[in-house]
Amino acid sequence: MGRIRVGVLTISDRASAGEYQDASGPLLQRMVTGLLGGEVELAVTIPDELDAIRDKLLEWVGSDRMDLILTTGGTGFAPRDVTPEATRQVIERETPGLAEAMRLASLEVTPFAMLSRGVAGIRGRVLIVNLPGSPKAARENLNAILPALSHGLELLAGGGTDAGHQYRPNKDRI
Amino acid sequence: MGRIRVGVLTISDRASAGEYQDASGPLLQRMVTGLLGGEVELAVTIPDELDAIRDKLLEWVGSDRMDLILTTGGTGFAPRDVTPEATRQVIERETPGLAEAMRLASLEVTPFAMLSRGVAGIRGRVLIVNLPGSPKAARENLNAILPALSHGLELLAGGGTDAGHQYRPNKDRI
Amino acid sequence: MGRIRVGVLTISDRASAGEYQDASGPLLQRMVTGLLGGEVELAVTIPDELDAIRDKLLEWVGSDRMDLILTTGGTGFAPRDVTPEATRQVIERETPGLAEAMRLASLEVTPFAMLSRGVAGIRGRVLIVNLPGSPKAARENLNAILPALSHGLELLAGGGTDAGHQYRPNKDRI
Repeated sequence: MGRIRVGVLTISDRASAGEYQDASGPLLQRMVTGLLGGEVELAVTIPDELDAIRDKLLEWVGSDRMDLILTTGGTGFAPRDVTPEATRQVIERETPGLAEAMRLASLEVTPFAMLSRGVAGIRGRVLIVNLPGSPKAARENLNAILPALSHGLELLAGGGTDAGHQYRPNKDRI
Repeated sequence: MGRIRVGVLTISDRASAGEYQDASGPLLQRMVTGLLGGEVELAVTIPDELDAIRDKLLEWVGSDRMDLILTTGGTGFAPRDVTPEATRQVIERETPGLAEAMRLASLEVTPFAMLSRGVAGIRGRVLIVNLPGSPKAARENLNAILPALSHGLELLAGGGTDAGHQYRPNKDRI
Repeated sequence: MGRIRVGVLTISDRASAGEYQDASGPLLQRMVTGLLGGEVELAVTIPDELDAIRDKLLEWVGSDRMDLILTTGGTGFAPRDVTPEATRQVIERETPGLAEAMRLASLEVTPFAMLSRGVAGIRGRVLIVNLPGSPKAARENLNAILPALSHGLELLAGGGTDAGHQYRPNKDRI
């Protein structure tokens, strides 16, 4: 596949209202370009509203402009943290190993990592990954899945399930 | 928030029938008081019946008397172990990181930890956590989440999702 | 319980079409006999079709001939990988600790382990476990749960949830 096309969705009431300068979105954009070798198609900030999050994810998946959507924010215990619930309404095939690997890596830094409720999953040919809202935690989480992310996106873009049995040895690992 | 108000729900056919002395419930009550700095509002024993478990959880959540409900028992492979299924019918927002962290810590003690099917999640402002039925495993599991539990409950009680971006640095981790 | 009765279901378009020699199914059969002390009741290969997978799982569960069904294949990111989705339609009680333990063990070998989407769960008295499609990864994953698998199947076959509180100390762990 060509360069990975990425959407970055910041989910935050206060950033959306202009009361807070979003730092995680710009950080993720830099990581997408610098570490993942991808390009940022769109970066948008919306409030912590389940319907708004779900609709934006559906719009982006339907646009055929993205291979990967990274969300940041709304994954915690606060009453308005509903990013995982909105994401679950959108994904067709959950990818629990990504969420587990992110929390596992983050747990080595802080026990508060176990409070992250982020999910990850696929709709059509698009992978959606929930990252925490703080820049530091978002970076840690994305770093945790970088070693496998490109390969997963190749498989997702690729075609039949068994195409790799002979020609893509790494596919055999999955 | 003030002291954490806790309900302890022992789920066991035999303890409920008086054939077995529940040890996990009393142990959890002592841990809530001594380690979590909370107070036990109610401690009840019921049989392994899905409807009874679900209804008791709903009753306790609706009572506005609890911030946290700890269940013990019914999380294993036996045919009548249905605590996770009842809990799933009650929670609105799953907190998978708590269940993962408990199994991860318990796996260091015994491979049988992977047989625990416990879930954790939030309904309204109440966190519900399934613990195993044996005193030893229940204690291990609760110990595994203690370092993050109070903070999670504060966020849950607290208010808007972004309230903590400036004033509660730890919220940024989630 | 007597010898563990096992069904091995290989899920692969190409193996099903005869374009590819299934290696994982035979490997799992040898592991069932040699390591788990079980016997293989049936070993079948089907394509990556959600309905076909679901129907075969239901047929096997309904046959009363198996205690354990191991699937191999269809757990990755490729568009036709739908084994977990089919399995979710069949299971009544999820056993997330098995899937977590498999990925955890596999992550020590390769970061691609986090791309495995396999699930595990129970329907009636039958445990269903999704394993990856490659022989190497399938073996690693099954090895990861072997230390707890027999005990879990005993509990599942056994009876009431509390039967083990006095007589089966290990049950207390769960």
